[in-house]
Amino acid sequence: MATDATQNAPETGAAAMRRAIALAARGLGSTSPNPVVGCVITDAAGTVVGEGWHQRAGGPHAEVHALRAAGPAARGGTAYVTLEPCNHTGRTGPCAQALIEAGVTRVVYAVPDPNPQASGGAATLRAAGVETEGGFLRAEAEAGNAAWLTSVRLGRPHVTWKYAATLDGRSAAADGSSRWITSPESRADVHRLRAEADAVLVGGGTLRADDPHLAVRGVEGATQPLRVALDTHAALLPGARVLDDAAPTLLVVAENADTRHLPGVDLLRLPLRDGRVPVPELLAALHARGVRSVFLEGGPSLAGSFLEAGAVDRVVGYLAPALLGSGPAALADAGITTIARAVRLQITEAVRIGTDLRITAVPTATAVPTTAPKEH
Amino acid sequence: MATDATQNAPETGAAAMRRAIALAARGLGSTSPNPVVGCVITDAAGTVVGEGWHQRAGGPHAEVHALRAAGPAARGGTAYVTLEPCNHTGRTGPCAQALIEAGVTRVVYAVPDPNPQASGGAATLRAAGVETEGGFLRAEAEAGNAAWLTSVRLGRPHVTWKYAATLDGRSAAADGSSRWITSPESRADVHRLRAEADAVLVGGGTLRADDPHLAVRGVEGATQPLRVALDTHAALLPGARVLDDAAPTLLVVAENADTRHLPGVDLLRLPLRDGRVPVPELLAALHARGVRSVFLEGGPSLAGSFLEAGAVDRVVGYLAPALLGSGPAALADAGITTIARAVRLQITEAVRIGTDLRITAVPTATAVPTTAPKEH
Repeated sequence: MATDATQNAPETGAAAMRRAIALAARGLGSTSPNPVVGCVITDAAGTVVGEGWHQRAGGPHAEVHALRAAGPAARGGTAYVTLEPCNHTGRTGPCAQALIEAGVTRVVYAVPDPNPQASGGAATLRAAGVETEGGFLRAEAEAGNAAWLTSVRLGRPHVTWKYAATLDGRSAAADGSSRWITSPESRADVHRLRAEADAVLVGGGTLRADDPHLAVRGVEGATQPLRVALDTHAALLPGARVLDDAAPTLLVVAENADTRHLPGVDLLRLPLRDGRVPVPELLAALHARGVRSVFLEGGPSLAGSFLEAGAVDRVVGYLAPALLGSGPAALADAGITTIARAVRLQITEAVRIGTDLRITAVPTATAVPTTAPKEH
Repeated sequence: MATDATQNAPETGAAAMRRAIALAARGLGSTSPNPVVGCVITDAAGTVVGEGWHQRAGGPHAEVHALRAAGPAARGGTAYVTLEPCNHTGRTGPCAQALIEAGVTRVVYAVPDPNPQASGGAATLRAAGVETEGGFLRAEAEAGNAAWLTSVRLGRPHVTWKYAATLDGRSAAADGSSRWITSPESRADVHRLRAEADAVLVGGGTLRADDPHLAVRGVEGATQPLRVALDTHAALLPGARVLDDAAPTLLVVAENADTRHLPGVDLLRLPLRDGRVPVPELLAALHARGVRSVFLEGGPSLAGSFLEAGAVDRVVGYLAPALLGSGPAALADAGITTIARAVRLQITEAVRIGTDLRITAVPTATAVPTTAPKEH
């Protein structure tokens, strides 16, 4: 029977799990198609004896890192894990078995594994006599793993739409100039969010207007995301910045686009719908390539297409304290014509970044990521 | 010589002045053309013995209210006043004299009176042997009196532009529907800000589209602001809600507008410029009527005109966590075509109001209201 992890040493347990959640976040952007996972092992007295996190797909799981760090001190101790330990033998051995072999007598995990292929670790632990509790600080841990959980639940990557705008919602002035609307601090923050994503995505308008680079700069140890550029008619010139070797790039074109001037460029050919790349097919193709999180950077019409397709899971807006009164809006063509059909969100965070305000919001319907109920 | 009010009892002095600033704010919206003023009197031991604030133009000044409350206990005490006590005999006697007669031995004020007609109180107090210090917590007190100080400095009313918009800057959907973009809490908050203003102003587009009422509802003890509606061609129908008797109303029309269908309506006739009511002339006319603060509620083009005229002193935006992707923007026609000419602001506050975010910002050039330097 599961016991209450907070019963004996409530503060120790919560502190250990929060530390595990923080450790897990270090893996954001480099573990796909795996989730981020953190693990903290305490000995019988509640002292931390080992920590670890899943650093990259194919590498050891969080539990293995933590057990290695703890060594013999894990025996008789408790493992706090952000996700239910796996039970299957993939590229690494099953973690449930590793915990049993190390002599851990209690396992507390936050989120039940929603992946049918991997689940069952808790049952294995219990069968081996390990005291096991699931669901501890589950909401906090789910928030930290929102992208991966969304991708498991929906079978497509989690999408964050990022925009930068003035207080009156303009992403550029009437003449198209937009450098810079936001502060240097906000622009640095964008690189941090890019680094957490598996892929960064822009549409053709942005590609032509800004010649964006899209790679991560200034984030130590960052894994470069896949740069995905929508270029329906393959109009991109070979010298475009997005084609340099700073990060991998995938060019999405219409199935019949002439790409002879772009030899060696990784291409994704998709049939168009109404002259546009259809969002569901695009996301399915990215998911098939292992992309679990997409950072959508522009422009307004592409964001509108994603919104209309119900494929925006998080909105991050950098609002600069400036007014323009004209110029392109940050969002367009979302297929909404009346107020009752507005996409309603819930603000989860509003913080100052430099002189700007960064607002994070999620659709009200998916404010709390849910996973399939699990039997115990 | 002025002494440091913080020297003897720093906390008492600051607490008393902050209390005076809070008392002053109670007068917002009902003292024009006078400033808001608060006064706290402490006895020799530092105990508060009297409080007062200026409640309405023509009524007693803050010092008089506080002296009445203190009675004989004022003798030998200290008066903390948010504004330099007046020296002139207007509708009420000079406050400097009243303080001297009450036997107050020390006067600490925050803001020197920038009004040449009223200044000189400090000199009078000193000449009578009262220890006098100016400038104590001046910045805090100036922020509380920003509207009046701006009107003295610029010779026009202080203007707050309020807007409500989605995160993508839309103030209505494509079909014009806008009820409701923001939460009930935000709409109640707007009534509170209306009550603090001398006048509420809307343009013709808003007048025709929304038939707004513009009076204050749900704010106890509120003085109704003057409702000012721009209606160039006097197209308003006699049954418009803005013409009811809930609050006074001023209709601004072109000088040659035919207003025969609007008998009894208070009219301001102004010559048009490029078919529009010119902002400087409008503000001058309102100032001449005693209006010291204007709450500009819409629509986008009128706000653009004010911004282009450099006549927006504060921006209050209610941002609803919603997305539309089409529909009118909150701001239009401000005469800005390139990013370098964007109106740059400084965010002074960002708070949650219901499910929304209220952002307050001021133009960077006027982030701190300044008054003319004063001789001591």
